[in-house]
Amino acid sequence: MIPVARLDSFSRDEFVRAVGPVFEHSPWIAGTTWARRPFASVDQLHSALCETVLNASREEQLALIRAHPDLAGRAALAGELTAASAGEQARAGLDRLSPEEIARFQTNNTAYLEKFGFPFVICARLNKKDAILNGFAARLQHSREQEIKTALEEIFKIAELRLRDLIAD
Amino acid sequence: MIPVARLDSFSRDEFVRAVGPVFEHSPWIAGTTWARRPFASVDQLHSALCETVLNASREEQLALIRAHPDLAGRAALAGELTAASAGEQARAGLDRLSPEEIARFQTNNTAYLEKFGFPFVICARLNKKDAILNGFAARLQHSREQEIKTALEEIFKIAELRLRDLIAD
Repeated sequence: MIPVARLDSFSRDEFVRAVGPVFEHSPWIAGTTWARRPFASVDQLHSALCETVLNASREEQLALIRAHPDLAGRAALAGELTAASAGEQARAGLDRLSPEEIARFQTNNTAYLEKFGFPFVICARLNKKDAILNGFAARLQHSREQEIKTALEEIFKIAELRLRDLIAD
Repeated sequence: MIPVARLDSFSRDEFVRAVGPVFEHSPWIAGTTWARRPFASVDQLHSALCETVLNASREEQLALIRAHPDLAGRAALAGELTAASAGEQARAGLDRLSPEEIARFQTNNTAYLEKFGFPFVICARLNKKDAILNGFAARLQHSREQEIKTALEEIFKIAELRLRDLIAD
């Protein structure tokens, strides 16, 4: 755990190494936010990181959403997830699915990707297997605009939990 | 083709939509560079984009390198490349390889990835098939530091050619 005050003296390289993994495959978010030091608390750092995303362009937001792996998808089955994602999917029970459940996830992942053009993102640490499957059913009814908003909100929750594993007040 | 002077009045969204694809799956580079308008020429815009990459942290540079597909790799064979990459690989002759050549590319891709931890990046528009295979042999001898530098230089060449397809002086 790194005390939040120690980040003040970090170079961009050090800061991105410490905070970058909070957003899946998107170290540019920490890189951009580095210029906004100092951060008085983990909460304030989290808000600054989220603002970087909200101030980015639509294409950058979509690239962030698309950097997320499918739940119980190809990368998960092949053992190619980031350490953070693997832990989160396991805690939601997604590493212990029956073949029928894996098929249900894949059908849902495909339907969602085909409708919206980006993968289904949900904070797996706050939702177990059944809640996630219900989430698919509900969110497939939404508009693309609603789902971009929801995906970013879920990403901000994921980021907050990851951040609190790494940085302490 | 967009005249470079027209970019001056573009919002971040518009700018990233126009310039973002110049860097593979990395619209944050255009997003960050947008703040540095105006650009007097395509050359100056290209330099500003490259500076954004050079001023980024090592992790951000590695994420950019890792956003590139293997040459004649899985994504290419599955038809999952970006339009820009598909055109570049085709122009280098990589869409018309024999099964033996595909196997050679895959062996090289794997060896390179295992040694350096990121994919082999070369400007395919400036190198035909044989030059690329020779490039593998030479670059596999280098240090990781050298290859990060070379990969970024190749990415800057790719970016310049893509930029000149999109933006005019």
